[in-house]
Amino acid sequence: MRGVVMHAPGEVEVVERPDPRILEPTDAIISLPATCICGSDLWPWRGADEVVDPMPMGHEYAGVVEEVGRDVETVRVGDFVVGSFFASDNTCEICRAGYQSRCRRSYLMAAEGTQATLARVPMADGTLVATPGPPDAELVPSLLAASDVLGTAWFGALAAEVAPGKVVAVVGDGAVGLLAVLAARCLGAERIIAMSRHERRQRLALEFGATDVVEARGDEGVARVRDLTGGYGAHSVIEAVGTQEAMRQAIGAVRAGGHVGFVGVPHGVSLSGAQLFSSAVHLHGGPAPVRRLLPELIQRIYDRSLEPGKVFDLELPLERAADGYRAMDERRAIKVLLRP
Amino acid sequence: MRGVVMHAPGEVEVVERPDPRILEPTDAIISLPATCICGSDLWPWRGADEVVDPMPMGHEYAGVVEEVGRDVETVRVGDFVVGSFFASDNTCEICRAGYQSRCRRSYLMAAEGTQATLARVPMADGTLVATPGPPDAELVPSLLAASDVLGTAWFGALAAEVAPGKVVAVVGDGAVGLLAVLAARCLGAERIIAMSRHERRQRLALEFGATDVVEARGDEGVARVRDLTGGYGAHSVIEAVGTQEAMRQAIGAVRAGGHVGFVGVPHGVSLSGAQLFSSAVHLHGGPAPVRRLLPELIQRIYDRSLEPGKVFDLELPLERAADGYRAMDERRAIKVLLRP
Repeated sequence: MRGVVMHAPGEVEVVERPDPRILEPTDAIISLPATCICGSDLWPWRGADEVVDPMPMGHEYAGVVEEVGRDVETVRVGDFVVGSFFASDNTCEICRAGYQSRCRRSYLMAAEGTQATLARVPMADGTLVATPGPPDAELVPSLLAASDVLGTAWFGALAAEVAPGKVVAVVGDGAVGLLAVLAARCLGAERIIAMSRHERRQRLALEFGATDVVEARGDEGVARVRDLTGGYGAHSVIEAVGTQEAMRQAIGAVRAGGHVGFVGVPHGVSLSGAQLFSSAVHLHGGPAPVRRLLPELIQRIYDRSLEPGKVFDLELPLERAADGYRAMDERRAIKVLLRP
Repeated sequence: MRGVVMHAPGEVEVVERPDPRILEPTDAIISLPATCICGSDLWPWRGADEVVDPMPMGHEYAGVVEEVGRDVETVRVGDFVVGSFFASDNTCEICRAGYQSRCRRSYLMAAEGTQATLARVPMADGTLVATPGPPDAELVPSLLAASDVLGTAWFGALAAEVAPGKVVAVVGDGAVGLLAVLAARCLGAERIIAMSRHERRQRLALEFGATDVVEARGDEGVARVRDLTGGYGAHSVIEAVGTQEAMRQAIGAVRAGGHVGFVGVPHGVSLSGAQLFSSAVHLHGGPAPVRRLLPELIQRIYDRSLEPGKVFDLELPLERAADGYRAMDERRAIKVLLRP
């Protein structure tokens, strides 16, 4: 099959990779009508994460089941399925409590490299959720978004305890930040403050339901959010970047007793216990347990009440993946869809 | 009046201090039948917090209203009242959401120095809660405990989302840690693991409802808690110390998706964003909003269903406060009651 590998920071290539095979009797093999590049793929591209040459890339996926191992019971060949970037057994205590991304046997799908035409999915019964039927073609980007960016944004909103009547601020205007605006709207937020200084992203944030845009960052951004909230700060802040500045901004912008949901993968973030204590905020985050959320998200996509696929503002052939990485790195694209 | 002041680390003295006066029309003056030393008073005693000589000491209080300012409406002369270590207006948005310790006008009672025979309480209507009637003498220590250590422990348990059926671990065996065991029992925890290596404190923890004692600390302590919980970790951990080691132990001992309530005042604590992310825990803490909890705690004390006053294992005349500080510093006493 064809698939993306990274050789070194800034260097990806589409190469011939071995077709995936059933390795465990609980595996499934799926074919991928589309795949995509994640903001977190930019960490190794920028040299912030290690690259082991050649490193298969990609962890988001939605597609058609081509083959299943002999112990797979609920997933059938021909099903259209969506899974999380973490495979999980969905039966252990942690999974049953809704934290499938921290399943006892969790397996990071990045190891399979889903920027390809086929993928192996371990623990298929636990990991995959079948759609109500074969999706119309225009739903595929949205289903692919559910696999990570939408699920992550939704989890960020739940972690921030977004609810009707609340004022929500979103730090970060990448795909996850923008979809966090959408999630906050769906969860009934009264007011949604998008923190963004990019005009095109602001437009999408407003389309997704933002009521206010704050361009300022750092202490000035915090002060603007406080101004907009009677001096108190937002009830809920979703942090969707992963840098020290973004986390500081998130904790600064939330009111005492409020909730910060952080879903940006932290790089070099350090939190002062004394500051956390005096701020009296709730802090919750981590790798989103997308598997928990998939049934609801798929249903909303099929209902046409959610169209997260709008975050894909650049579509390229898989063979041009390198152009896609560059476009996202240079912030010319929010999120890139790759077609085989 | 007589009151305790600190001159320098390790140096406290009982001196003649000016009687407090009504400064604002919303103030009350109360007389204190007993007062006490807090674990957090040991931070300046040990040189970890600044000392401004002469620094009045003490922030816990329960007593009889002697005088009120002309704008005080609900509190009456003669009432027996309990308040929090933070005075609060109890009317702002933050107070109404239950975070009175972070009230817009919050005022730290340490500035008044309640290790004395009298104290001024600002915002008396917002701050003070009257008991159902004059307390029997044996209830006074428990009411005094409600003012901080019990309220703090109870908040720690709520922040850790203690609930029926859950496994709870408590890091710290000072007065707050021991009362967190008691709070966890009252809130229905199924199993309570007290982390303590002091035999006398273990006994009180068991009396308060601990089901298991873990003597090991650090990574070994974490491993023991995991062993006791099928490898997953506790659902809820209450951190009641405030050191880096205690916080690491708390985060390490909780399961993915679980809750850490931290109420030890952090000193030199720094948290890695990456570790918090991968642990997927909920973190909440801060200065306890004791005012929110006081009505319920007072009722439970009057019902005799709670006896937090048991943490006072040394009673001294106020004039011997210095001996009390030494006894707590050397861990010879859990908590010291001072009688005028």
